[in-house]
Amino acid sequence: MLGAEAGMSKGEQTRQRILQQAAPLLNQRGFQGCSMSDIMQATGLEKGGIYRHFANKEELAGEAFRYALEQAVKNRTDGLEHLSGALEKLRFLIHRFVEAPSPIAGGCPLLNTAVDADDGNAALRKLVRHAFADWRKRLADIVAEGIERGEIRKDVSANGVANTIIGALEGALVLSRLEGTREPLRDAEVSLTSLLDLMANRQTRSLGA
Amino acid sequence: MLGAEAGMSKGEQTRQRILQQAAPLLNQRGFQGCSMSDIMQATGLEKGGIYRHFANKEELAGEAFRYALEQAVKNRTDGLEHLSGALEKLRFLIHRFVEAPSPIAGGCPLLNTAVDADDGNAALRKLVRHAFADWRKRLADIVAEGIERGEIRKDVSANGVANTIIGALEGALVLSRLEGTREPLRDAEVSLTSLLDLMANRQTRSLGA
Repeated sequence: MLGAEAGMSKGEQTRQRILQQAAPLLNQRGFQGCSMSDIMQATGLEKGGIYRHFANKEELAGEAFRYALEQAVKNRTDGLEHLSGALEKLRFLIHRFVEAPSPIAGGCPLLNTAVDADDGNAALRKLVRHAFADWRKRLADIVAEGIERGEIRKDVSANGVANTIIGALEGALVLSRLEGTREPLRDAEVSLTSLLDLMANRQTRSLGA
Repeated sequence: MLGAEAGMSKGEQTRQRILQQAAPLLNQRGFQGCSMSDIMQATGLEKGGIYRHFANKEELAGEAFRYALEQAVKNRTDGLEHLSGALEKLRFLIHRFVEAPSPIAGGCPLLNTAVDADDGNAALRKLVRHAFADWRKRLADIVAEGIERGEIRKDVSANGVANTIIGALEGALVLSRLEGTREPLRDAEVSLTSLLDLMANRQTRSLGA
């Protein structure tokens, strides 16, 4: 399906195909647990054919992480552009995370790479740290926007809320995947929704009522 | 220090020492990422010396997980026995998790093993699933006790609260470890404390006031 994209050279198509096939393997097995032989087998390429596109395994893993992250972010945010209220946006993002399965086999690439890289690979750790920081910023910006518009209480910490949402969702995902049920994710949604209700600026609400 | 325990045979002492030294390695590197050579190097034992005590790497990993889990549970619950109120107990357990660093290098063995085993090792997955189920039951029992005593509202789901606490703490730990700061854990504590406040039976409270 990627090969169909117009204007992509044959070399670029091969590179994309390697990423597409290596990303789920790395996501499922981790950097140490996924060998170059595994990737050769999945892609049907010789080692030389892979190293023509990536300097080493670290670079391939980094690019595969970026590829997986892009898919996951798209999957979790599609449709956000149609919403306007801050609380409505946050509820939507929580709900998407809870209901949309990971587009890459093996679950959330951020979570997997974070746990995989926290004691190892420094380059991967840097990439995943940036990815979490971006996610936090996107959520915190929505909260800050809600505070500015009087929709959210002024004493709410935008970063604290962002951390809480990300942590609660990622932790629930660990439980859900382990147990093969979406219940922990749905429990997290219920709790996070209660927290969002607490954050709502009641003064504005009652004035509006 | 384990060798000092009275009544432990020399064989049992060696077995305990292997677990004590293998547990942090497996916790940091994962089942695939930690080789038997790594464990031989850490313990200073030949392969035969290790296999005298464990049938295979799977059994060693399972026992090392149990060992790590026992240390983590002790670390996170010590002192609970002095408390009586359900909300007070939950607040205490959340606070312990947030403030007490993992006694085993590499972070929470439950989280690491869950993420490590979700696509792999079935025996380890079973062990970690039981460990999370035990934890959930302990928390849910405290909530149920609080409901029975009128301390917690009747419409609260004991399992839902337990899942929320576990998920929020484990997810925050991922962020905290990745970023090298306890801030995400402290943000989780603030949010969970707000949720506990929401759960309190206000009717009883105002009657008592």
